[in-house]
Amino acid sequence: MKNNLGVQALVWEENKLLLIDQRKLPNTSVFVCCETVADIVSAIKDMVVRGAPAIGICAAYGAVLAMRECTALKTGETQPLLLSKLDAIADSRPTAVNLMWAIDQARTLTASTPWDKLDAALLDLALEIHRQDIEANLSMGDHALEQFRASGDGSFSVITHCNTGSLATGGYGTALGAIKSAWQAGILEHVYADETRPWLQGSRLTAWELKQDGIPFSLNADSAAAWIMQNRDVRWVIVGADRIASNGDVANKIGTYSLAVLARFHQVKVMVVAPTSTIDMSLHDGRSISIEMRADTELTHIAGQNMAPEGVAVINPVFDVTPAEFVDVIVTEKGAVLAPDKDGIAALFT
Amino acid sequence: MKNNLGVQALVWEENKLLLIDQRKLPNTSVFVCCETVADIVSAIKDMVVRGAPAIGICAAYGAVLAMRECTALKTGETQPLLLSKLDAIADSRPTAVNLMWAIDQARTLTASTPWDKLDAALLDLALEIHRQDIEANLSMGDHALEQFRASGDGSFSVITHCNTGSLATGGYGTALGAIKSAWQAGILEHVYADETRPWLQGSRLTAWELKQDGIPFSLNADSAAAWIMQNRDVRWVIVGADRIASNGDVANKIGTYSLAVLARFHQVKVMVVAPTSTIDMSLHDGRSISIEMRADTELTHIAGQNMAPEGVAVINPVFDVTPAEFVDVIVTEKGAVLAPDKDGIAALFT
Repeated sequence: MKNNLGVQALVWEENKLLLIDQRKLPNTSVFVCCETVADIVSAIKDMVVRGAPAIGICAAYGAVLAMRECTALKTGETQPLLLSKLDAIADSRPTAVNLMWAIDQARTLTASTPWDKLDAALLDLALEIHRQDIEANLSMGDHALEQFRASGDGSFSVITHCNTGSLATGGYGTALGAIKSAWQAGILEHVYADETRPWLQGSRLTAWELKQDGIPFSLNADSAAAWIMQNRDVRWVIVGADRIASNGDVANKIGTYSLAVLARFHQVKVMVVAPTSTIDMSLHDGRSISIEMRADTELTHIAGQNMAPEGVAVINPVFDVTPAEFVDVIVTEKGAVLAPDKDGIAALFT
Repeated sequence: MKNNLGVQALVWEENKLLLIDQRKLPNTSVFVCCETVADIVSAIKDMVVRGAPAIGICAAYGAVLAMRECTALKTGETQPLLLSKLDAIADSRPTAVNLMWAIDQARTLTASTPWDKLDAALLDLALEIHRQDIEANLSMGDHALEQFRASGDGSFSVITHCNTGSLATGGYGTALGAIKSAWQAGILEHVYADETRPWLQGSRLTAWELKQDGIPFSLNADSAAAWIMQNRDVRWVIVGADRIASNGDVANKIGTYSLAVLARFHQVKVMVVAPTSTIDMSLHDGRSISIEMRADTELTHIAGQNMAPEGVAVINPVFDVTPAEFVDVIVTEKGAVLAPDKDGIAALFT
């Protein structure tokens, strides 16, 4: 499914949520139909859907389905049952921030809304969370466009890392949304997409999305990005963020820090595109962000096959932290912060 | 098989050559037994053996087997037949420099040696090429050790890329040989091995070799090397070379340039370990080294499975060029060149 936002990976249809099955991309593009809370929980747990904003939206629609399962019982008000269903959704991936945030809003609504108005209220909430996410992404696209235009004339090429598009959000995307905005404005020449080891989000998801949207791109090994900066004309590295500290340090997919250092050396600019909800003002700087180390098998096994000797030690950090000094601009839905620092980040919230 | 050189991947036994089957590593360690010219040609063509020095040695032993096939016919002198068999070996991978170099020496010997002394002469040649390669590697190890000792006290950790060990040479290895020398001298703490996309020589071969040799190591995604430099104590990046220009610019496996730039930023030193035969004095600098672009499928397919959408464009340079300014030292069998430049490289040949 496509509209003017590009690929649609998450579609609400009256009483069901359609989710593109990201586990089967890029080989097969099929939708999983979620009609029950159990369907939603499985979809989140089994990685049919990934990307923090997308998971949050999915959970909000899950709350609507939970309400409908309660009313279908025709036993009148069953608030405890509804709350237990919301808990089940919240538990599907306990560490996802947007998931908790969406379910917390559904809980608040449940406590404050008359039972007979709750179905409509939960649906409004889900639609609003979804709409706001897309609106924020489009707004980031506009602010990114201003930065592209300010950075030079003519069309340009970019390098991106991981997947930050429609597949990770309610639609359009953050960093990939900014890239789409540049393409629609006719100023984008080419996207160099890092394959993004170990999960290959670049090969599997970003390449699929760029192909669907008809944006010219090529895929490269992560370690070829420096060669591309050295030998091709690249103006921007454009990435998303998982968490941003109050001083502008950026935690993002492993490989982002490497790209940022290489970009600085090659006089390529670095743009981070992320909603203000990603900014954690309680963090003084990026050093206090703990880096999750993931399973060895992400490196040692590909497509179920063993690529390394049995039992080798693996260092597999899932994120890295890019110091603010390597970031030229952070683009949020509230505007851009150039040469980000404490004051620039704080100004977003005034 | 192991001796004090570590893993032996290439073993001559009276009238056959045993080659570890590198296609089956790391899951199975089996030897392919080459008793005929056809066996040697298949082994080279089908990538049982890889690495320029290893292929050259393999070809030299192949010349011995060629001679024995001729004498087995008991038809007296059959020089044209022998030469045609040498051609067959030379054609097994026409672009490999060491392969041509070894076969050229066998051809010269054939032209200058009485038929009844040719078997012994060809065997001496093969053993000598093999012995000299190992000797050169051990000598590089010694020269590297001097550099390690000069660079600071105590033990240290290193990052390496691709495979440059016994599996790529006659034994011991170049960059991996230097690492083995540091380990034997008791001054090596830990090896961080890049998995080395797209071929995964790090995961499949270097990890296997380090494990066999009992050297402490871990495997990481190529894009995690910057994180390792930022968060762990690493003193050296140690890599091999495919070709070195007269000014010290180094062509090596894709990702080497990236590592070298990142190393400079993190104050990690860069050591290139390669025999003088790798140095091409006809090249003014690295810009004249043409970079081979390899098949898209190396990126889009892993273990026979499709990892990217059908028909995507791929940029897959197999090598990159690291400018000499990013190399702290080039170690050859004739000694080390610090801060390599035209004069330093030229001095190796005086």
